[in-house]
Amino acid sequence: MLVASLHEDVGTGDITTQSTIPEDTVISGRFIAKEPGVICGLPVVARVFELVDPQIQLKACFSDGDLVEKGSVIAKISGPARGILTGERVALNFLQRLSGIATRTRHCVDAVRGTQAVIADTRKTTPGLRVLEKYAVKTAGGVNHRFNLADGVLIKDNHINAAGSITKAVESARFHAPHTLKIEVEAENFDMIDEALACRADIIMLDNMTLGEMAQAVARIGGRAIVEASGNMGQKDLLAVAKTGVDIISIGALTHTVRAMDISLRFQKADE
Amino acid sequence: MLVASLHEDVGTGDITTQSTIPEDTVISGRFIAKEPGVICGLPVVARVFELVDPQIQLKACFSDGDLVEKGSVIAKISGPARGILTGERVALNFLQRLSGIATRTRHCVDAVRGTQAVIADTRKTTPGLRVLEKYAVKTAGGVNHRFNLADGVLIKDNHINAAGSITKAVESARFHAPHTLKIEVEAENFDMIDEALACRADIIMLDNMTLGEMAQAVARIGGRAIVEASGNMGQKDLLAVAKTGVDIISIGALTHTVRAMDISLRFQKADE
Amino acid sequence: MLVASLHEDVGTGDITTQSTIPEDTVISGRFIAKEPGVICGLPVVARVFELVDPQIQLKACFSDGDLVEKGSVIAKISGPARGILTGERVALNFLQRLSGIATRTRHCVDAVRGTQAVIADTRKTTPGLRVLEKYAVKTAGGVNHRFNLADGVLIKDNHINAAGSITKAVESARFHAPHTLKIEVEAENFDMIDEALACRADIIMLDNMTLGEMAQAVARIGGRAIVEASGNMGQKDLLAVAKTGVDIISIGALTHTVRAMDISLRFQKADE
Amino acid sequence: MLVASLHEDVGTGDITTQSTIPEDTVISGRFIAKEPGVICGLPVVARVFELVDPQIQLKACFSDGDLVEKGSVIAKISGPARGILTGERVALNFLQRLSGIATRTRHCVDAVRGTQAVIADTRKTTPGLRVLEKYAVKTAGGVNHRFNLADGVLIKDNHINAAGSITKAVESARFHAPHTLKIEVEAENFDMIDEALACRADIIMLDNMTLGEMAQAVARIGGRAIVEASGNMGQKDLLAVAKTGVDIISIGALTHTVRAMDISLRFQKADE
Amino acid sequence: MLVASLHEDVGTGDITTQSTIPEDTVISGRFIAKEPGVICGLPVVARVFELVDPQIQLKACFSDGDLVEKGSVIAKISGPARGILTGERVALNFLQRLSGIATRTRHCVDAVRGTQAVIADTRKTTPGLRVLEKYAVKTAGGVNHRFNLADGVLIKDNHINAAGSITKAVESARFHAPHTLKIEVEAENFDMIDEALACRADIIMLDNMTLGEMAQAVARIGGRAIVEASGNMGQKDLLAVAKTGVDIISIGALTHTVRAMDISLRFQKADE
Amino acid sequence: MLVASLHEDVGTGDITTQSTIPEDTVISGRFIAKEPGVICGLPVVARVFELVDPQIQLKACFSDGDLVEKGSVIAKISGPARGILTGERVALNFLQRLSGIATRTRHCVDAVRGTQAVIADTRKTTPGLRVLEKYAVKTAGGVNHRFNLADGVLIKDNHINAAGSITKAVESARFHAPHTLKIEVEAENFDMIDEALACRADIIMLDNMTLGEMAQAVARIGGRAIVEASGNMGQKDLLAVAKTGVDIISIGALTHTVRAMDISLRFQKADE
Repeated sequence: MLVASLHEDVGTGDITTQSTIPEDTVISGRFIAKEPGVICGLPVVARVFELVDPQIQLKACFSDGDLVEKGSVIAKISGPARGILTGERVALNFLQRLSGIATRTRHCVDAVRGTQAVIADTRKTTPGLRVLEKYAVKTAGGVNHRFNLADGVLIKDNHINAAGSITKAVESARFHAPHTLKIEVEAENFDMIDEALACRADIIMLDNMTLGEMAQAVARIGGRAIVEASGNMGQKDLLAVAKTGVDIISIGALTHTVRAMDISLRFQKADE
Repeated sequence: MLVASLHEDVGTGDITTQSTIPEDTVISGRFIAKEPGVICGLPVVARVFELVDPQIQLKACFSDGDLVEKGSVIAKISGPARGILTGERVALNFLQRLSGIATRTRHCVDAVRGTQAVIADTRKTTPGLRVLEKYAVKTAGGVNHRFNLADGVLIKDNHINAAGSITKAVESARFHAPHTLKIEVEAENFDMIDEALACRADIIMLDNMTLGEMAQAVARIGGRAIVEASGNMGQKDLLAVAKTGVDIISIGALTHTVRAMDISLRFQKADE
Repeated sequence: MLVASLHEDVGTGDITTQSTIPEDTVISGRFIAKEPGVICGLPVVARVFELVDPQIQLKACFSDGDLVEKGSVIAKISGPARGILTGERVALNFLQRLSGIATRTRHCVDAVRGTQAVIADTRKTTPGLRVLEKYAVKTAGGVNHRFNLADGVLIKDNHINAAGSITKAVESARFHAPHTLKIEVEAENFDMIDEALACRADIIMLDNMTLGEMAQAVARIGGRAIVEASGNMGQKDLLAVAKTGVDIISIGALTHTVRAMDISLRFQKADE
Repeated sequence: MLVASLHEDVGTGDITTQSTIPEDTVISGRFIAKEPGVICGLPVVARVFELVDPQIQLKACFSDGDLVEKGSVIAKISGPARGILTGERVALNFLQRLSGIATRTRHCVDAVRGTQAVIADTRKTTPGLRVLEKYAVKTAGGVNHRFNLADGVLIKDNHINAAGSITKAVESARFHAPHTLKIEVEAENFDMIDEALACRADIIMLDNMTLGEMAQAVARIGGRAIVEASGNMGQKDLLAVAKTGVDIISIGALTHTVRAMDISLRFQKADE
Repeated sequence: MLVASLHEDVGTGDITTQSTIPEDTVISGRFIAKEPGVICGLPVVARVFELVDPQIQLKACFSDGDLVEKGSVIAKISGPARGILTGERVALNFLQRLSGIATRTRHCVDAVRGTQAVIADTRKTTPGLRVLEKYAVKTAGGVNHRFNLADGVLIKDNHINAAGSITKAVESARFHAPHTLKIEVEAENFDMIDEALACRADIIMLDNMTLGEMAQAVARIGGRAIVEASGNMGQKDLLAVAKTGVDIISIGALTHTVRAMDISLRFQKADE
Repeated sequence: MLVASLHEDVGTGDITTQSTIPEDTVISGRFIAKEPGVICGLPVVARVFELVDPQIQLKACFSDGDLVEKGSVIAKISGPARGILTGERVALNFLQRLSGIATRTRHCVDAVRGTQAVIADTRKTTPGLRVLEKYAVKTAGGVNHRFNLADGVLIKDNHINAAGSITKAVESARFHAPHTLKIEVEAENFDMIDEALACRADIIMLDNMTLGEMAQAVARIGGRAIVEASGNMGQKDLLAVAKTGVDIISIGALTHTVRAMDISLRFQKADE
């Protein structure tokens, strides 16, 4: 994927750099945080430059998951100028995006700290980047929901309608799916919760419920299943949601609405 | 890329759908805008479902670039339930993201309407999605800056330092780069502008200047080069920038800081 | 994968067929079972010939999972001779192998019929063919264990040693793995079973136990976890294993030791 | 192919190992033969672990083609525990399968030792693994038949029917195929043999003949062509076949019906 | 390969055509031979345009291998203007190159017409285009030498030196190579020819011999092996070479020194 | 691409070399120019052998772009014989072809030396090799025209007809294409030149004009646009063309009609 990203950005060659910078020019620079945030993506940055030119040296000053202040030096780079300039944009595009996800995730994790609830991601990720984006969530203290449609059973409305009932859908899934997977049912009301409990669903997702409904649902479930809160959680008061007693709060916005963290690569003058 | 995105999301198979939904079940549904915005990505949605199952019918009610209201039916879908549910998430991930970019771009385009300035994108795109993201910008009324490092010459600080001077860098680029490419120079002050003009740069990028400086720069250039304003333009008063007389305002945030447009796929009951 | 398999077998072209058979020759033939068995792989055969030449017609006389007698006509084929002869070997290689797996699986499934136990596969599959081989197991009435290392947690000796104890390993896995996955622990003795139960493992794998030990283990577990029997099950009396009360019997030999089912493609004389 | 096999087995990550084993844990282990056999695939094992983690050390104690006893240490491995456990299954799947093929091939080669006959493979290989499986046959003392449809001319029934006669088929093949390839004709009776000899076929394949017929055929051919015996040879008395005087005995079962050799990777306790 | 060639030429999009030609414009044109030659590559042209836009209609007026006059209409094309203009260059690059090879090959074939000799190609092909270039040679009446290093044995100097002698090299090759392949030996003098004959090489390549030496060699071999003439044959009097009695004349220049045939795509005015 | 080229040439293995040359044989040899020319492709040769076997040592005696005499040693190679012989043909195919292009380009460059004109390539390159072929042109002193349809605007007849006029086509392209690209118009007569100048085209291509017409065109344009001469320039008197005052002479034959430079790899005797 990194190779493809470099091809995408470099095309048939970085014509400006090749035209203006002699092959033996060396430079050094620093990745600077221009705002506070949680850093994520340093191994990706290292790999990008290794692919462009193995002679480039990257020295990370922080680890993925670290919180940095505005002005912090995140990493130092030195080596052949042509390679560094050619890889710069791709490296920054990954670093800024993943750090943006990590930063937002950390805010959510901090918001529910001290409660039993954890913050989870969803499959609302950028096409092609799911593994990296879920890594960013994990790095920042969140937990990962299923990676794809094969490694988790999540029974929704349409599955229930097609199967005939929650009970039939759960039984069918229990029979067909690998026994290593838990079975999760999306419930919109208390009747659905009761039926899901009756057929021993492992996880119950409360979809778009009010705080009051969630608290009631948690009480009703009484520890017989894991409880997940879902539905525009990116715009909710997460602490209040956590206090209803749910186990997991899953937030699509962690990955579908991302503000890139502002990070720049500043080069040093020869005499610095 | 769409094939890879489906593999990413489906993995070894949609175990829930295969377990609970009979192979011959058919459903129909509607893509609904849950907020106003500019739609982009409908051909991608069509292609995703065609890849999953050619029997799925998608009927678009709008065209890419159209502004829709909250509640608008963007497209109608019908066909085998298994395929529709399996492709749903990938289709939405593309549609929401591209529409998010188109919507933000349109706001910027509207902000400078009536002036000479146009809104341009940058290379700060999501790795792997550049062609689609630049298509979204274009669709919404923006213009595309260079696609990659091979189809435009943009001389920055480091190139100037390595070459020795703006003049040397421009001459070197003019000699080496295909003659079909214009030469752009990033200028931070008036001396740099003067030197760029002297060696006949085709485009001058004003980097991080104040409104006053930009206006002065435009006057100084006096039509001898295209003028591009750049530097955190996502957070500026775009109309004020446009009124300084610059030709192009390039905004990285169009693609690096994206809020997915809220769009959902609602299925219909059998009796609807 | 089918395209790659055709490239592998055809190389730069089927030189014999191109040399000796005129382009417009058409033939018809039948896939014949030369021994009884469970058929699996007909959609693969259809796709292989579709890739070689879309004009080839394949008409299946059975469905995947059907038991056929010696001499049964499994499918009929007709169309351009060049394409049929070029695709023949690849089609048979898939069909014979998958039917061989399905046939062996069915024998195992039949052996435990009437008990509570189900027959499961493992990850001991042929590199590159896992999805197809697990499909053959499923088709024949077996169940699928996890597809890969990402969609199931299975804690073995080494994990326990590294983590410090079963309890620590389970807790660590519960914290880090997606909550959609169950946690399975491999136990070699009753102490390990007790510890696994104490930390609420979802599945306990009894590794290489005697029939007596397995029966004792099932009693001890008492329904608090799913019980899986494992360890050279391909050479055991499966009914006796099933009668110990285990829920799942996983058998590596279903896929690692395969006897291709004997199936041939017989062509018809012009006057038949 | 090895990369694809690792992707197939690892998916989005080895969740158990990542959850329970600290990044800096090192382990060492031994690949043990649990039954006698001919080892094949050690370079594949080495490459698999090199792909997973270049820090893993693999020291082979035998070479491909060596016969090992039950209990033999085939290779020793040491290094980062995470990588070793992540690559274990793929490495074993290759090693066990290729060693299974080599072991069976050696039995056949031994059966005809002292005669003029050699044992050859066919194109009845596992899709995707042909190069490796033919390497296993070669390693064990067998010879390779053509690798694909492009590097050998083998004229069968259908080619003869389409061309009009053996003579026409051979002449056509001689004209069209590269002159570097020999021409082989499949013969079912003595008339066909006579015609093949008359048009100077280089190789004659005796298909499904009895021992008596084969002996007669060899006499009739009298050294004017290479003679290959074919047709369910996996179930024949190979020494008897060899004694008919044929040059080559080709056996599809060498690769289509494989019993994986029983090999395990045993890890050592810290104090061993 | 055709997809890759289109990506190479189109990059991120045909910006000129997209900017200037409305989406619904249709045009029609003709591929015109601007010099006489042998046409080759029409199916490639058809596939290129099918990949660009399935609505484009291509009607070939000749078949591959046909000789056309200057001014001949080779094919007619009509359909969406955007697609036709976008695919034009790639289609012509293939058609002109393959026709150039076919034309040169036909000249060589014609030069030896009436003799026993045939014209063969070599492995001196353009990287990536071997299958197509060998197809062009075949189409024009030449024959194909081996496609790659796996489907023919050709023993040269270095092999002989390493093996110890021609005899040892031939025996070793006969033992190791598939028995479906003939064994060819490159001979530079009569001693080498004698040794090659003595160990029953199937083909003897006369490397860089004079006409007189070739005639002597043919006499000496006396039909006991196929005789191939090689070594700068592109610059020799082919009829004279053929008259020495050699069977095959292989010519690297058929594919390594290619003059593209001059073919253009002329569009018609609306009123034509 | 180099990996694919090796696969193309090696297929399933170099059967001759593996059969006759012991694994530990080492050889050394020299790449010899058998005619004078401009060398190009040495880094490709180095990479080919590195891919085949990293133990092979290649020492270049010249740099790309250097003129060599007949008999010059271009590079020396030593290492494992198997790898060197296996990679030889692919390495030479690249080296001879690229050096052929470089040599022809240098002749053209020399022909116009002392004038203002430069020699440019076109998109008439071999499918799959464009980047390398354009590199050869550049290396020999030529300049590169656009790499693909995305990085240059070139308005021809059909674009003009579809848009309605040169003016409309240029305006449309200026609006839609990235502002980093110049706009080139192909002109067949003076009216077209005048209109192109009036709408400020950046480059005017004179298509198939006589020397007289070109001189007149240059005078008329008077420095207001870059002037490019095009149309069978491979067969023209380049100095005469240059003397008309055009800036650029683009020649399709540089890459579409290539004579491979004659280069051979000679191995040394053990005692040399």
